[in-house]
Amino acid sequence: MAHHGARGIPLVVIRRLPIYQRYLDELNRMNIERIASPELAARIGITASQLRQDLSWFGSFGLQGYGYNVPELLRAINHIIGLDQKSRMVLVGYGNLGRAIAGYEGFQRRNFLLQAAFDNNPAKWGPADQGITVYSLKELPQYLKDHAIQIGILAIPSATAQATADLLVNAGIQGIWNFSPVRLNVPPNVIVEHLHLTNSLMTLSLKIHQHVANHSGDDLP
Amino acid sequence: MAHHGARGIPLVVIRRLPIYQRYLDELNRMNIERIASPELAARIGITASQLRQDLSWFGSFGLQGYGYNVPELLRAINHIIGLDQKSRMVLVGYGNLGRAIAGYEGFQRRNFLLQAAFDNNPAKWGPADQGITVYSLKELPQYLKDHAIQIGILAIPSATAQATADLLVNAGIQGIWNFSPVRLNVPPNVIVEHLHLTNSLMTLSLKIHQHVANHSGDDLP
Repeated sequence: MAHHGARGIPLVVIRRLPIYQRYLDELNRMNIERIASPELAARIGITASQLRQDLSWFGSFGLQGYGYNVPELLRAINHIIGLDQKSRMVLVGYGNLGRAIAGYEGFQRRNFLLQAAFDNNPAKWGPADQGITVYSLKELPQYLKDHAIQIGILAIPSATAQATADLLVNAGIQGIWNFSPVRLNVPPNVIVEHLHLTNSLMTLSLKIHQHVANHSGDDLP
Repeated sequence: MAHHGARGIPLVVIRRLPIYQRYLDELNRMNIERIASPELAARIGITASQLRQDLSWFGSFGLQGYGYNVPELLRAINHIIGLDQKSRMVLVGYGNLGRAIAGYEGFQRRNFLLQAAFDNNPAKWGPADQGITVYSLKELPQYLKDHAIQIGILAIPSATAQATADLLVNAGIQGIWNFSPVRLNVPPNVIVEHLHLTNSLMTLSLKIHQHVANHSGDDLP
């Protein structure tokens, strides 16, 4: 049995939705109104029937002989992912990685709003780049209570990741985006998503060593 | 038709191999010698038959009734990915993101060796953290000629990404690990792998909004 979420959506489908979003968003910004199902599927590197099956978890999309209406499907997928609502985030750890995350393009356009950063180092406290302010970690629990924060980003060393995750969990966080290479213990209602830099690098290495050509869709920006 | 590489390996299989590697590596470090196929599959969030099918692209692994020998399967997967050889890398861009990449744990243990960094800003030139040296971008072509570098990491703004990719390609790079959210034009023999921070964040958001519980295996460090 494959692993499924509460609603039974397979993990592979969940992982593909962001890829659909990114590609449809790109088409939409190019003012492309319509795309055939096999073409969309090919750009993403799956079959047309897989695409239809994936989307059928969330409703009925596309018309026989017409394909998909790009803005409509994008809107639907944005709603599925939750991009039609603002997600407020805090960043814990304002080192090189934290600063890089804070400066990353493409969050705000998808309604992910970084509200504040927290760090143990007093030298970092105060106004910082991107219009955010860095606070003491001691202020984190109160800040989370005072603001409706959905997502906590952990960009701290592994050693302190669990203790910080506990703070976030106790303050009612919904999701943790974890950049520390450590497994976190959280209650089942809190979602943890790890960012695995090495997965991406290993995929690159595998393609080099197996002489796998670039897949279309795989080079999406 | 799903998109396949030169050897016909489906993209979904390619994307799963690093996940197998990470999990087997973790088992191996815990001195676990053997794992049943359904258990390994469950940890990764797929079915046992999918696991067997995935591995069948690369050879014959596991024994009926025994499962997999962990160190053996890890060794085989390391070979498939190319982790049994050293991959020499250069980093282009030594800003916050570049520094964060340079300091990331887990590369060296997988034989990914960062040899040098390059940046346009003279203030950054010279010895830096992690024992690497930052050079002028002007020195990049000669450096690539003098050292056997397989992978170039792009951690620079989108505007200069293509020009820098061209430099890497002209110097015979095999793969580009691209952190810039821009599509690169490269010859078919050069592999480009994008790191998509937003994919990971969108997955987190989707799970929150669809009330999808954490999958086992999905919280792998």
